[in-house]
Amino acid sequence: MDLKQIARDTAKVMVSYLTYQAVRTVLGQLRETNLPRSHWLNAFATREKLQDGEAFLKALLQAQPDLAVRVMTVRQHIVEEIGEFLPEMVNTSIQQSNIEHRRQYLERATQMTLSDTEAQPESENSAE
Amino acid sequence: MDLKQIARDTAKVMVSYLTYQAVRTVLGQLRETNLPRSHWLNAFATREKLQDGEAFLKALLQAQPDLAVRVMTVRQHIVEEIGEFLPEMVNTSIQQSNIEHRRQYLERATQMTLSDTEAQPESENSAE
Repeated sequence: MDLKQIARDTAKVMVSYLTYQAVRTVLGQLRETNLPRSHWLNAFATREKLQDGEAFLKALLQAQPDLAVRVMTVRQHIVEEIGEFLPEMVNTSIQQSNIEHRRQYLERATQMTLSDTEAQPESENSAE
Repeated sequence: MDLKQIARDTAKVMVSYLTYQAVRTVLGQLRETNLPRSHWLNAFATREKLQDGEAFLKALLQAQPDLAVRVMTVRQHIVEEIGEFLPEMVNTSIQQSNIEHRRQYLERATQMTLSDTEAQPESENSAE
């Protein structure tokens, strides 16, 4: 297991996702202050591939530099605000989810075993 | 900006992404120890939607419980190993990327301004 590579890949995915969240935030702000510009950014975000945050920012910097700078500022703000809480949130979420999956699985397995043992005495009774 | 909601959404995306990385890890291990099973898991991962990590695990628990438990164990191991480093990695990555985008943009803007000022004296010269 190449943990360093996994860490690098995960960080990259997070940067792209936070860029998407920053675009959403700027879109929300523009909807309240400058509706035509929010329409423009929305159309641009639909056209350009927002999956790759860096390629998106590069294209936006060419088209509307001030909006790109705004998205960059917002994503930096977001990571500064929520970054430190994420590992604990993800860790807890995975632990709880793992427990819940195991519980549901054991519950199903037990029900299957119970219905087996319930079926068992009947055949034993009929054998008496 | 609803930072709490953004944090929750980001954590959810990370859990799903780490589940995907855990499946990749288990696939890699199976390729070395049990090739037919690695083929089976690969086909299963292609068929079931790996985008939603929880739905994927639920389906895998029904089909091959021990593989599902293995994926759950691996994703917990991954987050325990790399979790604490991620915020710093993402923060640094965003900072560097922001600087790089700004640098490239300023470079282009300066080149455009330079070619303007270079064009200017010529027309002034020709006016002399």
